[in-house]
Amino acid sequence: MKSGSKFLFQQLTILGPGLLGGSIGLAAKKHRLARKVVVWGRRIEAAEAAVKIKAADKIALTPEDAVRGADLVILCTPVQVMSELVRQFRSKLKRTAIVTDVGSTKYDVVKQLSSLLSGRGIYIGSHPMAGAEKDSIHAAKPDLFEGAVCIVTPLPRARQANIKRLVDFWQELGCAIRTTTPAEHDEIVAYISHLPHMMAAALVNLVERRKPDAFNFIGNGFRDMTRIASGPPEMWSHIALSNREEIRRCIDRMIEELETIRRHVTNSSGSELRSYLRRAKERRDDLKHRF
Amino acid sequence: MKSGSKFLFQQLTILGPGLLGGSIGLAAKKHRLARKVVVWGRRIEAAEAAVKIKAADKIALTPEDAVRGADLVILCTPVQVMSELVRQFRSKLKRTAIVTDVGSTKYDVVKQLSSLLSGRGIYIGSHPMAGAEKDSIHAAKPDLFEGAVCIVTPLPRARQANIKRLVDFWQELGCAIRTTTPAEHDEIVAYISHLPHMMAAALVNLVERRKPDAFNFIGNGFRDMTRIASGPPEMWSHIALSNREEIRRCIDRMIEELETIRRHVTNSSGSELRSYLRRAKERRDDLKHRF
Repeated sequence: MKSGSKFLFQQLTILGPGLLGGSIGLAAKKHRLARKVVVWGRRIEAAEAAVKIKAADKIALTPEDAVRGADLVILCTPVQVMSELVRQFRSKLKRTAIVTDVGSTKYDVVKQLSSLLSGRGIYIGSHPMAGAEKDSIHAAKPDLFEGAVCIVTPLPRARQANIKRLVDFWQELGCAIRTTTPAEHDEIVAYISHLPHMMAAALVNLVERRKPDAFNFIGNGFRDMTRIASGPPEMWSHIALSNREEIRRCIDRMIEELETIRRHVTNSSGSELRSYLRRAKERRDDLKHRF
Repeated sequence: MKSGSKFLFQQLTILGPGLLGGSIGLAAKKHRLARKVVVWGRRIEAAEAAVKIKAADKIALTPEDAVRGADLVILCTPVQVMSELVRQFRSKLKRTAIVTDVGSTKYDVVKQLSSLLSGRGIYIGSHPMAGAEKDSIHAAKPDLFEGAVCIVTPLPRARQANIKRLVDFWQELGCAIRTTTPAEHDEIVAYISHLPHMMAAALVNLVERRKPDAFNFIGNGFRDMTRIASGPPEMWSHIALSNREEIRRCIDRMIEELETIRRHVTNSSGSELRSYLRRAKERRDDLKHRF
């Protein structure tokens, strides 16, 4: 995709060098996607760590300095501080700069940032679905995005050439790209990410509350079902509140599913439960080629 | 634990050479736990396959023939046919033979089998918590039990020496042993195995019903949360019906947990949700050393 010594971007600016920001920097350096990587972080120590591990070439002391001259700016901070940051730096952006973010919800973020950046840089939302239990620059690694799905949520007015430049970047990092609208994004991730996270936490807390001795008996099944419950609580409660309506709907529907199973378990024939479980098995088996 | 050329058992008999029976045979041969392994299966092809892959030395054509001379008999058939089998072979058992089973629920099984075997062999229930999506001799492997938890459910009247022989056997296969009563076993596995299985199936079926497009966006989190939904539906519906009361109670309590989360998501401060998720994270982090 890249030809020889050509870089996709001359300057990449990363705002917020945590797990995602740091890993983007490491991967961008490794695959030579940007000639220069500039980093800014609210905590100078995190930015220094990013340079030390070679996730960035240069520290900027302010967001304004960081974005100056950038062709690609990636907001890797918590979602709730993004608007404030953009207000701070937007006047320093090149008009041709692409700005994206890695927020886990998109409807509100895209609405706010695209409005703030209207007529300044070119904003297109992203959501690389990679993460880990530790949200820290010290957990950053260049292959974090290998095989991860990255959802890109361009608005209808976005130009194809700009979408393509951003998509190329994520693909070079190893991502499989999906494109959808911000609203559809939020509905989808409620089902496949936010609801599962709440279920994993519910399972751990239920056992802790009702049958803590059972933790002495757990095996791989329980381990895999609850792994994501180790995610950072601050981040996940922000995500949940920023996608509140969709998550509530998903929880209601999950309760309906569990009530269906409860009815099937109560009926003595077992045939309804068997077909319910068979339907799940067949669908899940179909998904195997995706992993 | 074994000394030199000594075998733990002279003759091991496996009834039902599927995934578990076949893997027990492979591991027993590999670790030289029995001088001779005899196998019987309702389908002669499965027994032949067991001998072919060296999970057994000899095929018996009837359960009666299979248990003759055995020091350890392991029932690896579906739970619902175990009583009938035991009635068929019990008069041929050595009085000192240890009989166990690998059923996923224990209260009913232990009650039936211990009563049928009273004054014949020595019955002690087992539940090795290993499995896979394919329940077939062709998926058998000698390391299936490495690191798996095996729950042993002796009755109060069981002699320590006999419990120890059975526990030694499972440990040699690589299992970590837990001991509890049959009733406590069923309550525990409802929480850590049966409920998680139902939740995994519910999640797959919910997405299929309400938002099938979302399957195009799934990643590792969804994969891990739903992996166990690929288990055999016939086996799992039997398990669920044989532990109906406990599973219904677990489902009710899970619905209560989800309603709690729903309330926390509705409240705008986020602090309740954050502490809920933090509690789950801390507990889950504590469990890591177990895996």
